[in-house]
Amino acid sequence: MASQRTVLVRRETCCTEYHQAVELVGKRWTGAILAVMLQGGPMRFSAIAQAVPALSDRLLSERMKELEARGIVERRVGGASPARVEYELTEMGRDLAPALSELEAWAHRWLESP
Amino acid sequence: MASQRTVLVRRETCCTEYHQAVELVGKRWTGAILAVMLQGGPMRFSAIAQAVPALSDRLLSERMKELEARGIVERRVGGASPARVEYELTEMGRDLAPALSELEAWAHRWLESP
Repeated sequence: MASQRTVLVRRETCCTEYHQAVELVGKRWTGAILAVMLQGGPMRFSAIAQAVPALSDRLLSERMKELEARGIVERRVGGASPARVEYELTEMGRDLAPALSELEAWAHRWLESP
Repeated sequence: MASQRTVLVRRETCCTEYHQAVELVGKRWTGAILAVMLQGGPMRFSAIAQAVPALSDRLLSERMKELEARGIVERRVGGASPARVEYELTEMGRDLAPALSELEAWAHRWLESP
């Protein structure tokens, strides 16, 4: 525990990147999208939309563009016509799994309904 | 890695709590406040404000109230006059350390300037 706390403050520059990271994954719906994408391989837009049904297509499209711009998601166009567009987490994106599953474990410990 | 991913989707109800958690810690400035408070024991408002200088007192006060309402932070009034008001993470709040330090480690791996 002590060493984990130390990590959070070790360097003056730590907070800039950490602060970016926490607000990046915590941006409205981004955490939910990442959880869905961490389940597996490439996904079509419609499959992501179906897995996060409360999110509008417009907002999902905005979030996917942000995640792509950040290097967390890769967009691939394949096949002939109609082109098959798929999204997949990059290595950077998949590397969020430990942090997000710790957060999910915390949520189960503390936020679950009795 | 596979088992971590499984955790994120194990149950239908998982996403509700996880979704709450990720947007709770990712709310503007909340992640930064939590990182500061994970450094140690009770802190006065002014010490937290000093550690997150870009945040206004008004917004910090709002965030502290939210964290207190959530059960993540405890506000204690002690001493005689003037009363000494201090804030400390509860057990629930301290238990965020593993998730936030994983996120900080990710930030160092992927967001650090070259």
